[in-house]
Amino acid sequence: MQKGNASILLDKPVYVEATASVVGQKEGEGPLAEEFDIIENDPMFGVDNWEKAESTLQGKTIDKLFIKSGLKYEDVRYIFAGDLLGQLIASSFGIKKYGIPFFGLYGACSTFGEALSLGAFTVANDGADRVIAMASSHFASAEKQFRFPLEYGNQRPMASTWTVTGCGAVILSKIKSPVKVTGFTTGKIVDYGVKDSMNMGAAMAPAAADLIETNLNDFGVNANYYDKIITGDLGTVGSKILHDILLEKGIELSANHTDCGILMFDSQLQDTKAGGSGCGCSAATFCGHIYNNLKEGKWKRVLLVPTGALLSTVSYNEGESIPGIAHGVVIESEG
Amino acid sequence: MQKGNASILLDKPVYVEATASVVGQKEGEGPLAEEFDIIENDPMFGVDNWEKAESTLQGKTIDKLFIKSGLKYEDVRYIFAGDLLGQLIASSFGIKKYGIPFFGLYGACSTFGEALSLGAFTVANDGADRVIAMASSHFASAEKQFRFPLEYGNQRPMASTWTVTGCGAVILSKIKSPVKVTGFTTGKIVDYGVKDSMNMGAAMAPAAADLIETNLNDFGVNANYYDKIITGDLGTVGSKILHDILLEKGIELSANHTDCGILMFDSQLQDTKAGGSGCGCSAATFCGHIYNNLKEGKWKRVLLVPTGALLSTVSYNEGESIPGIAHGVVIESEG
Repeated sequence: MQKGNASILLDKPVYVEATASVVGQKEGEGPLAEEFDIIENDPMFGVDNWEKAESTLQGKTIDKLFIKSGLKYEDVRYIFAGDLLGQLIASSFGIKKYGIPFFGLYGACSTFGEALSLGAFTVANDGADRVIAMASSHFASAEKQFRFPLEYGNQRPMASTWTVTGCGAVILSKIKSPVKVTGFTTGKIVDYGVKDSMNMGAAMAPAAADLIETNLNDFGVNANYYDKIITGDLGTVGSKILHDILLEKGIELSANHTDCGILMFDSQLQDTKAGGSGCGCSAATFCGHIYNNLKEGKWKRVLLVPTGALLSTVSYNEGESIPGIAHGVVIESEG
Repeated sequence: MQKGNASILLDKPVYVEATASVVGQKEGEGPLAEEFDIIENDPMFGVDNWEKAESTLQGKTIDKLFIKSGLKYEDVRYIFAGDLLGQLIASSFGIKKYGIPFFGLYGACSTFGEALSLGAFTVANDGADRVIAMASSHFASAEKQFRFPLEYGNQRPMASTWTVTGCGAVILSKIKSPVKVTGFTTGKIVDYGVKDSMNMGAAMAPAAADLIETNLNDFGVNANYYDKIITGDLGTVGSKILHDILLEKGIELSANHTDCGILMFDSQLQDTKAGGSGCGCSAATFCGHIYNNLKEGKWKRVLLVPTGALLSTVSYNEGESIPGIAHGVVIESEG
C-alpha cells in the first residue's frame, strides 16, 4: 500500500530468513567483531587484485548465506545487489557463478537499502518466494576508484571516513521468522552543493534528513516510533549535521539515532576519523549487529537508512557537487 | 504471477501512458529519424563536457515526456533509470532537479529492460500509480569511459558498434492506453569468455540467447508467439551468433528477430560497422519505432530484449572476460 509521497507499507510482511556478513581484518578488530560471520585477514582474499578481492568477498558472503540457510541456489529467484565500482564489476564478477537472475542496483552507499526495498516489494507481491539482497565495499578498491593509490599514503582529514571492507547479504522470504521488513521509503536526490569529497558525511546528511522526514510524514509517526533510526555511513560529522537539519524542522533525533559508520570502528583506537563508510558498512552491520538486536527482541522496530554520496571522480574533477541519496527500510521484530 | 524460473506474468497489465525520445545528429540521420521526438544536432547539448551533455540529454527527454503527457512532476512516484557511466552520473545529475524518488539501476545496455521490468512490477502491484523508466547513452561519454579519447581517432574494427547518443523514457501507469507491458523475464549473467571489447555483440549474444530461451520456456510458447523479438544492441555480428546459438537449441529465430542496433543506423551509409549500441539504443528505439508499431496495431506482441555487456576498463585491463546480461519485457498492443 502506498503511504504518502514516497513510502510503501507492505501488504504482507517479508521475513529475513537468513543473513550473512563477511568483513576484513580492521572491521574484525572493531566493536562489532563478534557479530560478523567471517573475518578475513587477507585483504586480497586470496586473489591478485582489489576488484577480484571484492568479488571474492561477495562470493564468500553468498556461500555463507547458503550454508547458514541450508538453501540451494535454485531456491533463490532473484539477486538485488550492487557495489561502488564503475559498472558494478564487484557484483557482476562476484555473483555470476550462481546463475541467479540479477537486478543490478546503484545507489552508492545507499545500495543495501535499495536492494532491501525492491527485494521485499518483490517477495511481498508474489514476484518471488525468495530473493537475495546484498551490497559490498572494499577499502582498497574504493580508494583506487575514488581517491588516491594506496601506495601514495595520503593524509586523511578529520571529516573523512574509512571505507569498510565488508559485505552483507540477506535472504528475504515469506517464511515466518523473527525479523521482518514491513515497509520502506525511497529517497530522492538531494544536493546542498557540498564539493568536499573528503567529507562524504556532509554530502549525504541532507539526503538522510529528507528521507527520515519523509518517512515520518508518510507513516504519520514521530521519531520515537522507532527504537532506533540507523543511518548508513554518515559518521560523526554527518550525524551532527543530520541532527541539526532535523532539529530545524522540529524533529529531535539524537535520542534514538545511531549510524553504522559510528558503530563499525572505534575511531580513537582505529584511527578511522569520522567513522566507517561504503556499501558494505550498513550491509554488514545490518546482517550482524542490527539483525541480532531485532532477533533477540531488544529492538522492536528499526528504520535503517543507508546513505549514498553520488560521487564519481569524473563529475568531481569537472567541478560538480556531490549529491546525496538515502533509502529507508522499516524492519521489525516479529511478535 | 511467477512463471517458470525467471519470469513474471503481471496480474494486471501496466500501460505505457507516454513515451519520449531524444537523440543526436547521427541517429537523426538514420532510418528511424522520423520516429524520435527531438533530434539535437549539438553533441554537447549546450554544456561544456560530455557527462553533462548526457545529463542534459536525460533532462530534455524527461521534459518532453512531461510535455507530451501533460503530467506534473508530482504525478510520478518513482524513476527507475540508469546509464553506462561509472556511478551513474549521467542519471544522478540528469534527474536530480525533478525531486522524484529514484531507483538507480545498472545493467549496462540492458538497463532499459531492467527499468521497464521493475517499473511495471511496481505499478502492477500498487506500489505506484505512475513511474518513469528511462535509460540513456552518449557516444562521446561512452568512448571516454570505455575506449579511447575521441581526439585519438582510433580505427574501428568491423565487429565494433557505435554507441547511440540517445535517451528514451516512458511513463508506466494503470490508465488504459494502446500499449501495455504484460510480463518480463529477468536475465542472469552469462559468460562465454569473450575478451574482445571491440566485439560487444559476441559478448552479449549468449546472454540474449539464454534470456529468449528462458522466456519461451517460462511462458510455454514458441518464438512465433511474438510478432517481433527485438534485442537491444547485438548488431549484425551478435545477431548472427544469437541465431546460431538458438538454432542449436532448436529455436528458429531469424524470421521474427530484429535488433535495435541494426534498426538505428544505415551501417553502409553511416559507417557504423556492426550497428548501434548503448543503453540509449534500445530505449530510444522503443520509445519511437517499436511503440509506434504497437500503438498502430502493426505488431500485436513484442519481446523486447535489451542486452548488456558487463564490461569496465578496470576488469578488462585486468584480463577479465566480458560477461553479458539481458532483460526481456513482453509488450503488447491493447485490443
